[in-house]
Amino acid sequence: PDVTVIDWNPIAAEKAGYKHFMQKEIFEQPRAIVDTLRSVLDVNREVLRFSDLNLDASLVHKLRKVFLVACGTSYHACLVGKYLLEGLCRIPVEVDLASEFRYRKPLLDDQSLLIVVSQSGETADTRAALKEGLERGAHCRAIVNVVGSSLARMAHGVLYTHAGPEIGVASTKAFTTQVVAFYLLALHWARTSGTISDPEFSEHLRELLALPRKLEEVLDRADVLRDWAREFLKVEHFLYLGRGILYPIALEGALKLKEISYIHAEGYAAGEMKHGPIALIDENMPVVVLAQKGELYEKMLSNVQEVRARGGRVLAIVEGEQDPRLGESTWQFPVPETSPWLAPVVFSIPLQLLAYHVADLRGTDVDQPRNLAKSVTVE
Amino acid sequence: PDVTVIDWNPIAAEKAGYKHFMQKEIFEQPRAIVDTLRSVLDVNREVLRFSDLNLDASLVHKLRKVFLVACGTSYHACLVGKYLLEGLCRIPVEVDLASEFRYRKPLLDDQSLLIVVSQSGETADTRAALKEGLERGAHCRAIVNVVGSSLARMAHGVLYTHAGPEIGVASTKAFTTQVVAFYLLALHWARTSGTISDPEFSEHLRELLALPRKLEEVLDRADVLRDWAREFLKVEHFLYLGRGILYPIALEGALKLKEISYIHAEGYAAGEMKHGPIALIDENMPVVVLAQKGELYEKMLSNVQEVRARGGRVLAIVEGEQDPRLGESTWQFPVPETSPWLAPVVFSIPLQLLAYHVADLRGTDVDQPRNLAKSVTVE
Repeated sequence: PDVTVIDWNPIAAEKAGYKHFMQKEIFEQPRAIVDTLRSVLDVNREVLRFSDLNLDASLVHKLRKVFLVACGTSYHACLVGKYLLEGLCRIPVEVDLASEFRYRKPLLDDQSLLIVVSQSGETADTRAALKEGLERGAHCRAIVNVVGSSLARMAHGVLYTHAGPEIGVASTKAFTTQVVAFYLLALHWARTSGTISDPEFSEHLRELLALPRKLEEVLDRADVLRDWAREFLKVEHFLYLGRGILYPIALEGALKLKEISYIHAEGYAAGEMKHGPIALIDENMPVVVLAQKGELYEKMLSNVQEVRARGGRVLAIVEGEQDPRLGESTWQFPVPETSPWLAPVVFSIPLQLLAYHVADLRGTDVDQPRNLAKSVTVE
Repeated sequence: PDVTVIDWNPIAAEKAGYKHFMQKEIFEQPRAIVDTLRSVLDVNREVLRFSDLNLDASLVHKLRKVFLVACGTSYHACLVGKYLLEGLCRIPVEVDLASEFRYRKPLLDDQSLLIVVSQSGETADTRAALKEGLERGAHCRAIVNVVGSSLARMAHGVLYTHAGPEIGVASTKAFTTQVVAFYLLALHWARTSGTISDPEFSEHLRELLALPRKLEEVLDRADVLRDWAREFLKVEHFLYLGRGILYPIALEGALKLKEISYIHAEGYAAGEMKHGPIALIDENMPVVVLAQKGELYEKMLSNVQEVRARGGRVLAIVEGEQDPRLGESTWQFPVPETSPWLAPVVFSIPLQLLAYHVADLRGTDVDQPRNLAKSVTVE
């Protein structure tokens, strides 16, 4: 009964014709997301079943607060998770860095749910955070990729991402499947607590099922990002701007570039640009903007104008069609339209590809960047 | 009755022998903090009186959640405010950027307190956030420096910082008085709700009253920071690391340098360094560490070792004495020991001075940095 079958084939750990594991893993994302969906979704009956999560209706009704805690890329998945859980379930969510969480004596009790997130399930600070949650009597769950890992064993329940083995130090498919896992969790919670209707639930499932195909569309145009990379190869600074649910993706896009190309990239909430970073803008600091359609689009257009007025070069990931209002000199990469909840996944792909190609062209060790470890097992 | 007396003398707005307003304002901080303390504290009777705050015991007992919302430097004051309010009053606090807050449909109700913070009281995004809070039925308060400003008039109560007029675009004395205002508010709240005892309250007041003198001690050694600035003048990257209540000060220190020197400085929670930014470390990216004594000090020492092992140069602001364990080649600036709650103020001063001298030596327009406005009155 305690035996866990690991179904990862050693063959899957080879590069399968790709130059780097990271590149291969970027291209595996449609498949990884299908696998993550399949693990809990009965498509025909439109039912979500979480075999190991242990989060039934009586607990959902009892919970008053959710804490999401992680490090690095998984922390960015938690920031997206806050939007999903608060937006769909109307439950307050607090996100914390694992290395900070336990030292600030968080206000946890038996109406609190702590969800820790980690690809490896072994991250030392995240383990310590989970230990803190367990000791303080919170309900504890883990979202991890590695079956049977420490976090999976310590928590009261687990939701596995089915990304398959991730070898590249810079996380890609583990991140997008974490976001999908949060979405599935939020849908389950929202249906249980009655904050979304049955037709809304069905519509969310339709969007999720359409996602892998949209990612394929983006991946088919990967060469465009290689051209961008060639152009911006030599800069030493990048700024990434996002708003709302794409603010965490601006942070994640910047982290990817930092990790593997050693370019100093920084993510910012676009509305904060005027409160500091705009002083840095010139032709040597290109700005990547995440231009999601919807209520915040006009504000992002005005950010783009401010950057261009100061001689800054803009690279825009834009939802739907290219938009002349982004400016003639703006580099534009269109991504398929999607529901606002899934935009974090769709917008992540071109940012991963941009970071990958910049690093590859600069000749860094993409899969094993200097100073970094795949799994940080010391505090 | 609606007439407000503005007691700022035009003379006070001159540079009084300093080269820049920012420099003058840095040196005014002991006085500004004394004025802020005096505005609410009856020292002899050990009583706090907030004439315009409108936060009595019946309301304190009713509140279940606090939201702190601001932009730029004021946002960093809010991050410190969360530590103070959660730590001393055990009330859950959520901090948000004003430009993000209202778009994510925050879960506000009549058991929520929204506190908006702004030096000018006119910041457009912060006004919009306050409007959102008022419409959703939250109790709303403002911490502002300018008497009779929009935020002060719109909110249900106001706590004034008594920094005096701040002319330099990069905020200094407004920031440290905001932190002191949060501390005073937290003490009032904690005493009202009974989470601290009378002797504890008295001890907190003693620490507060000792603060201006400690800041004078730091300011007396400002020349040391000018020497540092001369040495690090030509780098184009800086990393600032803090933990716990000094994590926001790492963000604020980096923002100061960004704003006026146009150096790409980034603040990070020290525990996150291994999850990305350490890939950037070499001799061209010096690292400023905020080494507070206490439970997190050993962890910061190991961060310093990691940086030095990768050829990084370390500038340490260290509490108490210089420490050989920080490494022989580490630049050390000691600051007076203080209670953990006031460390954010003490550690801010050398970071302001470092940014000021780097910018001055680089010859930028310190008081009017490019692309920035003192008060951002458009969204």
